[in-house]
Amino acid sequence: MPPTIFFAAGPANWAEYEAPLRAALARAGVAADLSDRAPDPEAVDYIVYAPTREFSDFTPYRNCKAVLSLWAGVERIVGNRTLTQPLARMVNPELTEGMVEYVAGHVLRHHLGMDAHIRGQDGVWRNEIMPPLARERKVTVLGLGELGAASARALAGLNFAVAGWSRTPRQVEGVECLSGAAGLETALRRAEILVLLMPLTADTENLLDAGRLALLPRGAAIVNPGRGGLIDDAALLAALDAGRVGHATLDVFRTEPLPKDHPYWAHPRVTVTPHIAADTRVPGACAVLVENVRRGEAGEPFLHLVDRVRGY
Amino acid sequence: MPPTIFFAAGPANWAEYEAPLRAALARAGVAADLSDRAPDPEAVDYIVYAPTREFSDFTPYRNCKAVLSLWAGVERIVGNRTLTQPLARMVNPELTEGMVEYVAGHVLRHHLGMDAHIRGQDGVWRNEIMPPLARERKVTVLGLGELGAASARALAGLNFAVAGWSRTPRQVEGVECLSGAAGLETALRRAEILVLLMPLTADTENLLDAGRLALLPRGAAIVNPGRGGLIDDAALLAALDAGRVGHATLDVFRTEPLPKDHPYWAHPRVTVTPHIAADTRVPGACAVLVENVRRGEAGEPFLHLVDRVRGY
Repeated sequence: MPPTIFFAAGPANWAEYEAPLRAALARAGVAADLSDRAPDPEAVDYIVYAPTREFSDFTPYRNCKAVLSLWAGVERIVGNRTLTQPLARMVNPELTEGMVEYVAGHVLRHHLGMDAHIRGQDGVWRNEIMPPLARERKVTVLGLGELGAASARALAGLNFAVAGWSRTPRQVEGVECLSGAAGLETALRRAEILVLLMPLTADTENLLDAGRLALLPRGAAIVNPGRGGLIDDAALLAALDAGRVGHATLDVFRTEPLPKDHPYWAHPRVTVTPHIAADTRVPGACAVLVENVRRGEAGEPFLHLVDRVRGY
Repeated sequence: MPPTIFFAAGPANWAEYEAPLRAALARAGVAADLSDRAPDPEAVDYIVYAPTREFSDFTPYRNCKAVLSLWAGVERIVGNRTLTQPLARMVNPELTEGMVEYVAGHVLRHHLGMDAHIRGQDGVWRNEIMPPLARERKVTVLGLGELGAASARALAGLNFAVAGWSRTPRQVEGVECLSGAAGLETALRRAEILVLLMPLTADTENLLDAGRLALLPRGAAIVNPGRGGLIDDAALLAALDAGRVGHATLDVFRTEPLPKDHPYWAHPRVTVTPHIAADTRVPGACAVLVENVRRGEAGEPFLHLVDRVRGY
């Protein structure tokens, strides 16, 4: 009997994913019963998941072999105590590509001081201030997972002087790799441009608090396409008000959409982008989902399994 | 007797270059008599040149072995009939690096649609429109000399679908290379983002005229860090007014500084940057100048000689 896949990622995603997911299953020769309704929870073999208001109790899905997240970040599900099944994150090359482009673009934007030209078309020819070359510009990437490592590598390819920090030691070619508590201080003290690409866990929540913000060189730019909770918002606003932090480009927030009256919107030193840095692209995501179903049916290990203790 | 170097690039450059140029000569072990005054033109062995109002007649410098331009672009000197000495352009890695960073930054900016976020912090969460991935974005670079080839290579490294066009056929890794008149049409028709990095010659003046602008896909973005004269300004303004061209980021102009009342300043689809894409950086430029003096004294061929017929 073909396995049953319950698509529990909400109606908007279902509208977008149903046809390409059916096509990807057919292409891979994986027979499956795909639906966005689950009349009998015990018959469900796989759950495709994204956070929705309706779905939070995994208890009835006793025969479910894996929960397959549509999202790279799983902080809204990993702490769910009813979830005892294996949980796989979404990792796909297209998501990484989009992230690398966002990071490279915004780091270059801050490096080149583009905003002054984009905003200030006032007829005044200001050519006195030349940016340094990228190789003289210190950029730090916090987080050296899939997205952080790819971004750090791309920035190094653009000649930036890149340091990367991760909880446990990692190696990325062309990048000065730091780790641990002392490494974090070193990484922050040098960061003329700081990129946040860590998962959100109990350990990383409010990582960028007042004390750590104070370690940055005066006027540093922050780019956060990681998770909103990595930053203590009140501390960042205070540092921006004081000019200690020069600019923050933020793609992710504790509440999304970012409420219309949030001070980030109106702050002259903040650029809000609406969680667009790295979208899960449908075709690549379908390929990853189907490959995990195929593996489950063949008894092979799943891709991109989440370590529930680590939280990502 | 040590050779005499006449620094004829104006007082502002002299103030910036004198000390580092003397240091570079000493470091290379090249003895020379360096001055910004030339009491006896016949005693001058090398002229360091940048366009100034005061200096335009090379006739008296009958024993001059080479004229060494501080600038990469030599269109303001190459047609000077009194100039019969060998003419070398400035080509240095730092200039290329700065150019590549400017081009990569502004191409990513247009690719990601950054301006909407930088300018429009109005509290509206607009996440419906995702840019395509870079590999789905067609970028064309016109000109595959030192700067054009390096920029095209960097854009290909960022995954863009890059085509490059040059007058005569060239090869650049990862870039679809086109040449000749038919190649130019192909290059323009595909250019969602168009980068101009050609020298200004009689052949390239007004290259981007009304007819060629009409070949671009509707809404294309133009980035011109090459030379102002490559574009027919009136034709570009008409195409921008009509929305056929989506945006133009211009770093170079027929008259610089760009006059305060020029329509480019106020145009909502134009970003003016004040000729900052690639400045000659002093240390690297001094090394190139000194190397050419050393070669001249050793009877070796000069670096970066300009082909006077071709014009660059």
